[in-house]
Amino acid sequence: LNRIKASGLKLRFCTNETQATREKFVKKLQGMGFDISVAEVTAPAPAACRILKERSLRPHLLVHNDLVPEFAEIDKANPNCVVIGDAAENFTYANLNEAFRVLIGMEKPVLISLGRGRYYKETDGLKLDVGAYMKALEYACDVQAEVVGKPAKAFFESALAEMGVPAQQAIMIGDDIVNDVGGAQRCGLRALQVRTGKYR
Amino acid sequence: LNRIKASGLKLRFCTNETQATREKFVKKLQGMGFDISVAEVTAPAPAACRILKERSLRPHLLVHNDLVPEFAEIDKANPNCVVIGDAAENFTYANLNEAFRVLIGMEKPVLISLGRGRYYKETDGLKLDVGAYMKALEYACDVQAEVVGKPAKAFFESALAEMGVPAQQAIMIGDDIVNDVGGAQRCGLRALQVRTGKYR
Repeated sequence: LNRIKASGLKLRFCTNETQATREKFVKKLQGMGFDISVAEVTAPAPAACRILKERSLRPHLLVHNDLVPEFAEIDKANPNCVVIGDAAENFTYANLNEAFRVLIGMEKPVLISLGRGRYYKETDGLKLDVGAYMKALEYACDVQAEVVGKPAKAFFESALAEMGVPAQQAIMIGDDIVNDVGGAQRCGLRALQVRTGKYR
Repeated sequence: LNRIKASGLKLRFCTNETQATREKFVKKLQGMGFDISVAEVTAPAPAACRILKERSLRPHLLVHNDLVPEFAEIDKANPNCVVIGDAAENFTYANLNEAFRVLIGMEKPVLISLGRGRYYKETDGLKLDVGAYMKALEYACDVQAEVVGKPAKAFFESALAEMGVPAQQAIMIGDDIVNDVGGAQRCGLRALQVRTGKYR
């Protein structure tokens, strides 16, 4: 990372992190010794907020408690859509049923998902990611979610736009063959899979 | 129901009930005044047990506590498949992750689902049914579940066999357009949807 920065190459951190605000995410990485700032991070929650505002959508949130501040300025009264992120411990039976009831009660259900990851690895083992719960709600309500995180094309495009770099001159580095590598390739970037993290 | 029985027509209760043993299910209906016995009930758990025995499968169970006795005679040590039913309150974040880890840890994941219902209605509102959680695990592990309850063809066929009645002479009555009506029709039965229960 330091060598990339020292070389003068432009750099963007594309994360599907939806368990915390960008501020908290950046602090965690800084604590590990990484040279990173909030302005260098492209994340799903701010992307979702732009969509919500543009389309006058009022979300019912099924997200991690620590992500809620990203939606501080969004009207959440009388919801007309459901936004799902990696809610982790908030993926309770009660919360899933509640999100389902809000969704099925709509004339035309709108489900926005902050990613479509299958699973990820934590120190205590593999965990189901938001994509699995998205599929559960999609199936129950016969609806297709709009995905705003990786591997959505718009997500990579906004990262490229923020850097002012065309896709052909960019490379994506990640450990997820679908979300990182596949998503970037479909957007015209080259991609490199690292065999660390959850790779198995 | 009493008129059907009095007429001499053969009758079979086909349930995807996986929150309780057949014994408990029958007692509940008897308590409501219905003339029903355990021998008249076709249910997913006994069907799953036949499959487990035939294929020497040892299940990790993600089911309702009250259903566990149906699997009393099944070897559950060192599991080589996952059986999922409507686990209700047992659909916790921890239990879902555990079932996922067992499944993803297999060389060739085997997922058996006691139904594929989307949702059902209880006195306190709509609830996600086993099908939604099945989809979550299918997606996370890139596997297709084997469904043993309605609308699986084998399920209706075993009910017909138990009555000794050909499909053309039978009619299925239910409130679920997919599991009851669709499943029966694909099996050659006629079907009638009642607009009670969870119908909306």
